[in-house]
Amino acid sequence: MSVSGATRIRVRYAETDQMGVVYHGNYFTWFEVGRTELLRQMGSSYKALEAGGFGLPVVEATCQYRHPARYDDELEIRTVGRMATAIRVAFSYELVRLPDGHRLATATTLHVAVTRDGRPCRLPGALREMFA
Amino acid sequence: MSVSGATRIRVRYAETDQMGVVYHGNYFTWFEVGRTELLRQMGSSYKALEAGGFGLPVVEATCQYRHPARYDDELEIRTVGRMATAIRVAFSYELVRLPDGHRLATATTLHVAVTRDGRPCRLPGALREMFA
Amino acid sequence: MSVSGATRIRVRYAETDQMGVVYHGNYFTWFEVGRTELLRQMGSSYKALEAGGFGLPVVEATCQYRHPARYDDELEIRTVGRMATAIRVAFSYELVRLPDGHRLATATTLHVAVTRDGRPCRLPGALREMFA
Amino acid sequence: MSVSGATRIRVRYAETDQMGVVYHGNYFTWFEVGRTELLRQMGSSYKALEAGGFGLPVVEATCQYRHPARYDDELEIRTVGRMATAIRVAFSYELVRLPDGHRLATATTLHVAVTRDGRPCRLPGALREMFA
Repeated sequence: MSVSGATRIRVRYAETDQMGVVYHGNYFTWFEVGRTELLRQMGSSYKALEAGGFGLPVVEATCQYRHPARYDDELEIRTVGRMATAIRVAFSYELVRLPDGHRLATATTLHVAVTRDGRPCRLPGALREMFA
Repeated sequence: MSVSGATRIRVRYAETDQMGVVYHGNYFTWFEVGRTELLRQMGSSYKALEAGGFGLPVVEATCQYRHPARYDDELEIRTVGRMATAIRVAFSYELVRLPDGHRLATATTLHVAVTRDGRPCRLPGALREMFA
Repeated sequence: MSVSGATRIRVRYAETDQMGVVYHGNYFTWFEVGRTELLRQMGSSYKALEAGGFGLPVVEATCQYRHPARYDDELEIRTVGRMATAIRVAFSYELVRLPDGHRLATATTLHVAVTRDGRPCRLPGALREMFA
Repeated sequence: MSVSGATRIRVRYAETDQMGVVYHGNYFTWFEVGRTELLRQMGSSYKALEAGGFGLPVVEATCQYRHPARYDDELEIRTVGRMATAIRVAFSYELVRLPDGHRLATATTLHVAVTRDGRPCRLPGALREMFA
């Protein structure tokens, strides 16, 4: 099963580059905000997962850049999460500009659950329940 | 035809996150360094391309993270570039840790040539010659 | 005269470093958010200033770090702006953690008004009126 | 006593902003490179200090921006370090553009030695000897 949510951010000057648009690598920070807020909206918390001894490092990331994001744009990050395997969780993202609803980018990240010492492990219970 | 080159960087503290490894989004900055130095090694220069009125924004990016990069690691970025179409250039990357040669990540970026006002155009002559 | 405002941000994972706290250089991005939102709250806009041909590059910055900001903290940026000279504007900042009101950092930035070609100039009218 | 050293970096595209120059907050990452390389040149290593259970978080930072750094500039970071007190170390920086030797910025950072749990402590022996 998948869960989904949305959150909004405002583009910062620091995120732009001299092309006058947002640097492509910075989109991944927004997708992190997207999944953090999705977990929060589902009653979970990435901070709590970490405090519980788990991590969810990214093992794969992709992004298609359709139209540039610009300074001071208000953007909505629409995030969908699902269990990919017993130890992996997959997120997909749509980045939409407000108020016109223009879709600027689509992306995916794949994460593996690890213990504090970096070893892959089953997804923590809070995540398994969230996706159940 | 494809061209290839390699360059080295040292991991900065600013690039790490609280997982104790480099934040996944920061790898894309290193791949930028990889293609900048590849162009320089081929006798071209991204700075000169821009001064000539062209840009090469990223339209697609992917990265597979195999082993984490850590603070103060010395890394080699091996970059291969090729013309994908008359208006697109594709780069692929291998990120290798020194001195043990461990491969940390592989990645790709796809770029479209644009004029100063953002319109897609044929790849600038310097690039076409480089890939000829 | 001075004007003041406040805005809130949530600490991103990308902003942390392997010390487990936010990297010191990243605070300056938050202060940028503070002054951007102050201008917006005053009915002005940094984006509009730029569109009008002006810039406000930073010529001096200072920050005192009292207590570390951490991942997922909710922070309030309290920003005060004033004309320092006919061509310079000064901002000061307090960074306060919510909900406990703990003051994490204080900072200042000094900016000079410039035209599009980078030459110092009188502060644009919108700013002069804002500070009048 | 003070110790000094110099190291070189190349400006990355990711470090620029839409003003066409390097974003002011990014200079602090370069100063980090300056002090990391100074420690290495003195036969020490920040990585080893951390592995030994110490940290040197920044408690104060200042920067004067004189002339903008631009994409692809080659810059030299000249760093001077000294013990400020038994628990604090101070660094100052000059950022110089190559090959013309133009001084772009001057800066300072003040650091406090801390143990792994964040408590202030005497500077680790390796640093005390370095400054002796």
